[in-house]
Amino acid sequence: MTGYSQYRPLPITQVEKWDFETDVAVIGFGATGACAAIEARVAGAEVLLFERSSGSGGASALSGGEIYVGGGTDAQKAAGFDDTVEDFTAYLKLAGGPCVDEAKCEIYGREALAHYQWLKDQGVPYRGNYLPGKVIEPTDDSTLIWSGSEAAAPFYRHAKPAPRGHVIQHMGWGGGRPLVDILERRARDLGAEIHVDARAVALITDGDAIAGAVVRIDNKDRFVRARKGVVLATGGFVFNEAMRRKYCPESFRVNSPIGDKDDGIGIELGVSVGGDAIHMDQFFTTCPWTIPAEQAHGVFVNVAGQRFINEDCYHGRVSRCAVDQPGGKVYLLLDSAHFTRPLDLAGITIAGTGETWEEVEAELEMPAGTLSATMHFYNEHARNGRDPLFDKQPPILKALDQSPFVALECNFQTSYFSFFTLGGLKTSTDGEVLGRSGAPIPGLYAAGRCTSGLPAWGHGYSSGLSLADCTFFGRQAGRRAARA
Amino acid sequence: MTGYSQYRPLPITQVEKWDFETDVAVIGFGATGACAAIEARVAGAEVLLFERSSGSGGASALSGGEIYVGGGTDAQKAAGFDDTVEDFTAYLKLAGGPCVDEAKCEIYGREALAHYQWLKDQGVPYRGNYLPGKVIEPTDDSTLIWSGSEAAAPFYRHAKPAPRGHVIQHMGWGGGRPLVDILERRARDLGAEIHVDARAVALITDGDAIAGAVVRIDNKDRFVRARKGVVLATGGFVFNEAMRRKYCPESFRVNSPIGDKDDGIGIELGVSVGGDAIHMDQFFTTCPWTIPAEQAHGVFVNVAGQRFINEDCYHGRVSRCAVDQPGGKVYLLLDSAHFTRPLDLAGITIAGTGETWEEVEAELEMPAGTLSATMHFYNEHARNGRDPLFDKQPPILKALDQSPFVALECNFQTSYFSFFTLGGLKTSTDGEVLGRSGAPIPGLYAAGRCTSGLPAWGHGYSSGLSLADCTFFGRQAGRRAARA
Repeated sequence: MTGYSQYRPLPITQVEKWDFETDVAVIGFGATGACAAIEARVAGAEVLLFERSSGSGGASALSGGEIYVGGGTDAQKAAGFDDTVEDFTAYLKLAGGPCVDEAKCEIYGREALAHYQWLKDQGVPYRGNYLPGKVIEPTDDSTLIWSGSEAAAPFYRHAKPAPRGHVIQHMGWGGGRPLVDILERRARDLGAEIHVDARAVALITDGDAIAGAVVRIDNKDRFVRARKGVVLATGGFVFNEAMRRKYCPESFRVNSPIGDKDDGIGIELGVSVGGDAIHMDQFFTTCPWTIPAEQAHGVFVNVAGQRFINEDCYHGRVSRCAVDQPGGKVYLLLDSAHFTRPLDLAGITIAGTGETWEEVEAELEMPAGTLSATMHFYNEHARNGRDPLFDKQPPILKALDQSPFVALECNFQTSYFSFFTLGGLKTSTDGEVLGRSGAPIPGLYAAGRCTSGLPAWGHGYSSGLSLADCTFFGRQAGRRAARA
Repeated sequence: MTGYSQYRPLPITQVEKWDFETDVAVIGFGATGACAAIEARVAGAEVLLFERSSGSGGASALSGGEIYVGGGTDAQKAAGFDDTVEDFTAYLKLAGGPCVDEAKCEIYGREALAHYQWLKDQGVPYRGNYLPGKVIEPTDDSTLIWSGSEAAAPFYRHAKPAPRGHVIQHMGWGGGRPLVDILERRARDLGAEIHVDARAVALITDGDAIAGAVVRIDNKDRFVRARKGVVLATGGFVFNEAMRRKYCPESFRVNSPIGDKDDGIGIELGVSVGGDAIHMDQFFTTCPWTIPAEQAHGVFVNVAGQRFINEDCYHGRVSRCAVDQPGGKVYLLLDSAHFTRPLDLAGITIAGTGETWEEVEAELEMPAGTLSATMHFYNEHARNGRDPLFDKQPPILKALDQSPFVALECNFQTSYFSFFTLGGLKTSTDGEVLGRSGAPIPGLYAAGRCTSGLPAWGHGYSSGLSLADCTFFGRQAGRRAARA
């Protein structure tokens, strides 16, 4: 048996020779790994970066390239939003719900403006304009969008709303790829040495400290000495079914994992040396039900015909709450004033139609007086601009009373409920991996989705929180490792 | 720094002398530890048992002494219930929900009858009679009660219902104490050596295997050699707030932890040597709302006036689903035909009354047409013996239409929502602690609430599942350790 099978740590005494020696070894080349590499190099450390795929990207490159930033950016100010560090931080904490890491919210709240400037300094372009309305990603090259539940209950009552999604200037969807490209170029220019097709399989320990990693290249094990530290930046575990079964079984309610490799290796490596994995049951999910934009005015009911949330929340928060409902599906109800054909890729189907809500109810085979009663109550108050049950706000709040009516089925298994995991290693605000006792593990750092970070709670997710977490705490980890 | 601070394993090479030597060391003296000790002794092993309190008991002694057993016990047969291993096993699996350990359900389903006989053979008395109705524990010395959601949707559709809670013969509540007393006597009679006021603080490792434990007695560290193995039987982590915050933050919605010490030490020790802790977010909670029994006919609504479950489910399943509702409380609605004063200790208060449901609704300051509409719909169908929304079954299903009406507030923080944790070490059906790769850790065993077992899912709990798990898998662990 080799000492590093099954991600078991290898004592340094068993290393015969080093294949690589460096100050800081970074594992994983998404946005997190790139930012860690950049900052470690800027701090003067030698950096080797190992990526299991054949190039940079990871889940970051599959994202929209949107970063959650607030507290008064140029784009916010230009659009007339008077955001403050206090409101921004308060929102971050609410978004963390029961899983919140207050210290991470506070440091990011304070330093996000400087971080945004840093991104620009790396060469990330922002047009600087504001795109109003409920959009998932801009279809043009706009910058500032509403990307969370800021203006919706209960959030708006505790923190003054402002849009905080800042999207890289890039035409259309998919800004994650150009974002990572810019960060990769910067890391290379600074002299980080990149090895692709190189998969980490174990950490190397020297007593209590991490001294390096075992990396498999060309099916051979290579021994990497990291004098100052190893930074784990390997993403979540959405593609590891065994881990999901053990730690996040509710995620099987949905069916469309998104990510790159995301097999949880970084979490396993961290835990193998005493790291603490927390909030492992948390996951993000969303179904793109707000496209076309008219559909954002819809009302959701569960199979009992009950509403369950103010639908003006972020699409992902609504989707995550939907997935808590029994029956494997929810219905999105629309009237003829707001219905347009759903996005094909969403897998949202027409389940019932009618000239009245009673007809829709009957077509869905719901008992008389359920869905129809819900909609009459909703419409009666919506006409007065009120939602006494869930406090949905105008202008999203609209009476749905223009016949004919339609019920769209959002099925957790067959509609496109994309999802990824949020739980992971517990880290300090400096990116140190913490042991179960709370003390840092010397020489081990981590950031991004192999950690539990800013987007800790599935029900509080906002677009851009993960990339904020990856880029900011990736930098923290790289800088801290270089200082070790 | 000592090698075993913060529950870190101590290499055997650092042990200077053994204070104790034995075959099997059992840590914790609730029902689990007692059963492990008994079986290890029966198998011929020397047994030392260490308990941090001054006597036996643990959380087991605070329980009702009720064990979930099925498949055709004498008591079931005498009462005319034709239970089978298949129905029993099917129910166990449903009760495990997304966290189910199918192998554990299957072995316990097959062997529960023999286990029940074993309990009798140890001297545990059962009167053998059936007590019908919805009771939490018998107030007399009856045996067989309905202690789960067997007859309620969706369970009854997948497994033929039968009562399966088997309560030790003992007048009134609190059968857990006499149950543990009997098991303790048996363990002592068989020659297990018991040390109380002895707290385990670390495991001792010999390469990959567990060779013993460090136990603190009179504030001194004692070194225990366990030639065949260590059995962890230390309960859950309901009294460890830091662990709850990291792994089970939703449990802070409720406020009345129950247990003995239950500080998670067994989980920490297991993980310190590579054990895998799973489903750590799961917890049981219940509020004794079915006492007096008339109140079992009540209807629950959330703060939006919506029902959320068939209220004929087990009181703990209803309570757990209640705690998922927003607003920090739910209301139990009753009419004058079913209201009696709630149990004082439950902390359930009268929130509103009225001659009509509209008046109750107004007194609760709910919008007109919410709670009242829910109750009119419910009553209209209940009069016909139907609950089209949640499939609540007669005879619990009753129209609530006898004026005056009342709404009782079950407040998650101020009412008595007792709770304990369900997540813990992943173990084989033999009680072996499994590492994260799935392989057993040589020499380490565990059972009961420091493991994830039969009651793996908070929403599927049934009374008696924990003691079933503790006693049956405690025996498995003790026997397996003795065979090592």
